[in-house]
Amino acid sequence: MPVSSIDDLGRRAKAAAPQMARASTAQKDDALRTAADLLVSRTDAVLAANAEDVSGAESRGESATVIDRLRLTPAKIEAMAGGLVQVASLADPMGEVIGGWVRPNGLRISQVRVPLGVVGIIYENRPNVTSDAFGLCLKSGNVAFLRGSSGAIRSNLAIAAVLRDALVKAGLPADGLVMVDDTRREVATQFMRQRGVIDCLIPRGGRSLIASILENATVPFIIDGDGNCHLYVDASADLSMAESILVNGKTQRPSVCNALESLVVHRDVAGDFLARVDVALADVELVGDERAQATISRCAPATDEDYATEFLDLKLSIKVVDSLTEAIDHINATGTGHSEAIITTELAAADRFVAEVDAAAVLVNASTRFVDGEEFGFGAEIGISTQKLHARGPMGLRELTTAKYVVHGAGQIRA
Amino acid sequence: MPVSSIDDLGRRAKAAAPQMARASTAQKDDALRTAADLLVSRTDAVLAANAEDVSGAESRGESATVIDRLRLTPAKIEAMAGGLVQVASLADPMGEVIGGWVRPNGLRISQVRVPLGVVGIIYENRPNVTSDAFGLCLKSGNVAFLRGSSGAIRSNLAIAAVLRDALVKAGLPADGLVMVDDTRREVATQFMRQRGVIDCLIPRGGRSLIASILENATVPFIIDGDGNCHLYVDASADLSMAESILVNGKTQRPSVCNALESLVVHRDVAGDFLARVDVALADVELVGDERAQATISRCAPATDEDYATEFLDLKLSIKVVDSLTEAIDHINATGTGHSEAIITTELAAADRFVAEVDAAAVLVNASTRFVDGEEFGFGAEIGISTQKLHARGPMGLRELTTAKYVVHGAGQIRA
Repeated sequence: MPVSSIDDLGRRAKAAAPQMARASTAQKDDALRTAADLLVSRTDAVLAANAEDVSGAESRGESATVIDRLRLTPAKIEAMAGGLVQVASLADPMGEVIGGWVRPNGLRISQVRVPLGVVGIIYENRPNVTSDAFGLCLKSGNVAFLRGSSGAIRSNLAIAAVLRDALVKAGLPADGLVMVDDTRREVATQFMRQRGVIDCLIPRGGRSLIASILENATVPFIIDGDGNCHLYVDASADLSMAESILVNGKTQRPSVCNALESLVVHRDVAGDFLARVDVALADVELVGDERAQATISRCAPATDEDYATEFLDLKLSIKVVDSLTEAIDHINATGTGHSEAIITTELAAADRFVAEVDAAAVLVNASTRFVDGEEFGFGAEIGISTQKLHARGPMGLRELTTAKYVVHGAGQIRA
Repeated sequence: MPVSSIDDLGRRAKAAAPQMARASTAQKDDALRTAADLLVSRTDAVLAANAEDVSGAESRGESATVIDRLRLTPAKIEAMAGGLVQVASLADPMGEVIGGWVRPNGLRISQVRVPLGVVGIIYENRPNVTSDAFGLCLKSGNVAFLRGSSGAIRSNLAIAAVLRDALVKAGLPADGLVMVDDTRREVATQFMRQRGVIDCLIPRGGRSLIASILENATVPFIIDGDGNCHLYVDASADLSMAESILVNGKTQRPSVCNALESLVVHRDVAGDFLARVDVALADVELVGDERAQATISRCAPATDEDYATEFLDLKLSIKVVDSLTEAIDHINATGTGHSEAIITTELAAADRFVAEVDAAAVLVNASTRFVDGEEFGFGAEIGISTQKLHARGPMGLRELTTAKYVVHGAGQIRA
């Protein structure tokens, strides 16, 4: 198929941004609901395109996991449509007045929420991201400028065609969604360098993608990073609660970024608690320090690398510490600044942990699995930021916006 | 002099961050006031170091402007001290609860303001930035990791020594301020790549510095960019007000980023208004389109480059437009997203301009010169962001912070 140059696509995305920014909430919600309807009514076309991607993946000998993520079904398409309808039901963050004041000279200053403009998203494999990202960008008044993986390009283009039709039906520009159709690797690099076009780049992918962005991007970006999440079981902890939260964090969905990867336990309760862990996590591979190994015979020695690793699997590292201070230091040294939890009954321990652990989210007596946009009540999320600029933690519609200062005067000049 | 490796300095900065983040407001204010006192009492030592930098600059044949910016005087040192005392009087942004809510499952979520950690600042020439940046970083609970220019290194190190002493006297770590003492160019590049150490990099300098950051930085950064600021004089404008604001914006301080660089005027008032401009801006070089040249005989033709240029000098580009729409399009096409103003008496024109001009600040009937931290009431500023992520517009203490989600539960696990 013929492909478009990235510069042309960028110009189209940028040109559509003012119209998307001015769209009313009603118009955006209409486009979202229309898109949901069209996705369902055109399921056959999307599935046909997807079948080509899947057969390509099979002939390349991709793993079952990769193919499973790539393969669409009528149910998956209905879920994508449902996601769009849900975004339509969320509050529109546009126009929110963040603050306002009057200066001594009479100038009235307000800070209002406005769209970013063009949001670039680079993602891997899963075609449903096309529709999810589109929905959040649209509702927040932004153009979605998308670059998916080459293996899913037919699916992505088929979905994008449906979504673009929905924009037009709602009276919005088709270029409210621009999909990069040139799947060559060097085009991804060009995409990251569309300065002046892409106002914010959000990568959804693995470490090599992140590394490439750090090296090559010239546009502002938000890193949706790893989650090497810890549970610290304090000397004062309710051990039944700690066990239940450990099992939930480690086993309920081990492959996600807010799953637990490491257990840190105070020496005063290490014997009792690790004996429980041995039983409760019978299916989980355990690696730990000498004190952990002394209590759990099947526990293998943990290396420094183990403590720094996001396993995303049924594997847990364990460290026994002498104090809360040692726990905090260990977590700050080995964590990735995602989500960190303490189980304690002592107010002072909870307060110190909350204040001194440096992470997007710190939890007291709750599972790290709650750290996501849906569970936080944002209705949807575009990712979870582990950087400190702009957005930190789960990112919903509001994190896809920026602000503008509006100053009203009556002819004031500066002395 | 012997220099420290950037990695060592980075480790020291990072190690000091937790203690700086935990410092009480009283302790930080004490350090600021002590630093102000010490700067004044050690004026001779700072001036001696500065004299060496100045004589170096003179022997290299630097321009009078460069030497003027570099040279310190007792009055300049007192002004630096006064700046620190003023920052001590500002409200501490730390711990502010940005928002909070309770989820249906009883989880209590709050979002609280916390320091960024290590703020890296690269700046050129002016040694007073050492103390200004230190003051804002300290008050916001951050470590200041500073890299000044080689031409000011002796001044910067002398000032830093004083400020570090003040930190220690206030019971804070000296490494709350870390100054890079290796002035080789490649070290600036290493500085921009201290990922995991620098949480936010703010460049204070010209285009080559910005370009180098876009190419080389792997740490998150905020661009303090150019200001190609426009004044649009609407058909309905009060022309006396327009004239006064034009003169203020163009001539009050032409070398700063919020000065006016371009006049856009509606054709209906172009004849009358440009005749006034010819007189009012007698000392200003004018370039313009054909209609501007027809009214002002001394007005030279403007090139596309003129319209895109931040002159920072007594020069103004002029464009006559047929409509508000054309004005908005021209401003969005040639502006740098800094500060843009309209002079109008029509509500609808003001509203459209405010909504559709894409800039950090949009002003109605007021001078663009008001767009800075001091004039906005922030008490001090670290720069003016022209990017859309994290901070947009004047950046005060609050923009040197990030947020942390704090989640309190009673044993909740995810179903």
